[in-house]
Amino acid sequence: MLISGSGSNLQAILDARANDPDFPAQPVLVVSDRPGAGGLLRATAAGISAEVVDWSDSPDRESFTAAICDLLDAHKVELVVLAGFMRILSQEAVRRFPNAIVNIHPALLPAFPGARAVEEALAYGVKTTGVTVHFVDEHVDNGPIIAQEPVTVMAADTVETLHRRIQTIEHRLYPKCVAAAATGRLRVQGRSVIWDER
Amino acid sequence: MLISGSGSNLQAILDARANDPDFPAQPVLVVSDRPGAGGLLRATAAGISAEVVDWSDSPDRESFTAAICDLLDAHKVELVVLAGFMRILSQEAVRRFPNAIVNIHPALLPAFPGARAVEEALAYGVKTTGVTVHFVDEHVDNGPIIAQEPVTVMAADTVETLHRRIQTIEHRLYPKCVAAAATGRLRVQGRSVIWDER
Repeated sequence: MLISGSGSNLQAILDARANDPDFPAQPVLVVSDRPGAGGLLRATAAGISAEVVDWSDSPDRESFTAAICDLLDAHKVELVVLAGFMRILSQEAVRRFPNAIVNIHPALLPAFPGARAVEEALAYGVKTTGVTVHFVDEHVDNGPIIAQEPVTVMAADTVETLHRRIQTIEHRLYPKCVAAAATGRLRVQGRSVIWDER
Repeated sequence: MLISGSGSNLQAILDARANDPDFPAQPVLVVSDRPGAGGLLRATAAGISAEVVDWSDSPDRESFTAAICDLLDAHKVELVVLAGFMRILSQEAVRRFPNAIVNIHPALLPAFPGARAVEEALAYGVKTTGVTVHFVDEHVDNGPIIAQEPVTVMAADTVETLHRRIQTIEHRLYPKCVAAAATGRLRVQGRSVIWDER
């Protein structure tokens, strides 16, 4: 799992695994691009390797991406889960982990891509926004969509209150999608993601 | 009401009025840009004036828009409801009916604007799309959003099945929004539409 911050989605996945002995994905490694990310503590508390690949130590995006991919390979990672990871990886990551990198985004893509999705949705005046889980492809916030759930915007919403309701959905939806991806239930056909019945 | 086709949203509003003696909007005029539009028959069947302003008779968008606005003024129309109207009016319409033109769009704007919203949403592979009702401003599918409702995309959906489920939502949502606009319950503040409590 790749993180940049407190790692609340990381925690949701750790909790899903702790609460369900049959949860099919085994987290093996958490990597942060920042030394102080709170999610690193969550990882070590759960007995998972935690590593830092410091963005500011990398001469460019290519070497940053290569260092992360090497680390993922060394830990035999099969599914790369972005959980509040605020760096954009180079195309090498998609080449080395094709249809095996998932991301979660706090809006209903293709609406409001980018790092300020909740603010932008509120500023636009939408009445419905939501959560998107998708495979990562070579473009930002663009890959095949695994799941989406709507969130109703309330008249009194601020960025904070809306973001909190969006995160509640994220913490339920992401573990479900990670489990499905880990068990090979998700088939990508063009831009469609088909959930195979079990 | 302005239409181009069969006018199923027009019918939904006529039905809402027929079923509720307190429905606060009185349809007075239906205008089509095409002589053969089925919605014209629905209008006359309901005792409402039906007129054609033929797009192909107009030398340009400006004169087409002016002809329609003159007709709306002659009938003392206070709220202009676009119901499957496939022509883009010139800016004169927004100047003459500021925050008094409403439109319904079969997607969650700002995602999938334009005339092929359902096809494009399906081709993109979204799992959630929906319906948007909005005030018309000087840009296409852009004005302040009055209401949105999500619609879940099913694995087996075709454009037809998805469009049918979207229309079911439209036929419930549009009369509600038209009633709110007609009673002055909707306040536009910047890009936000606030629903005043009654």
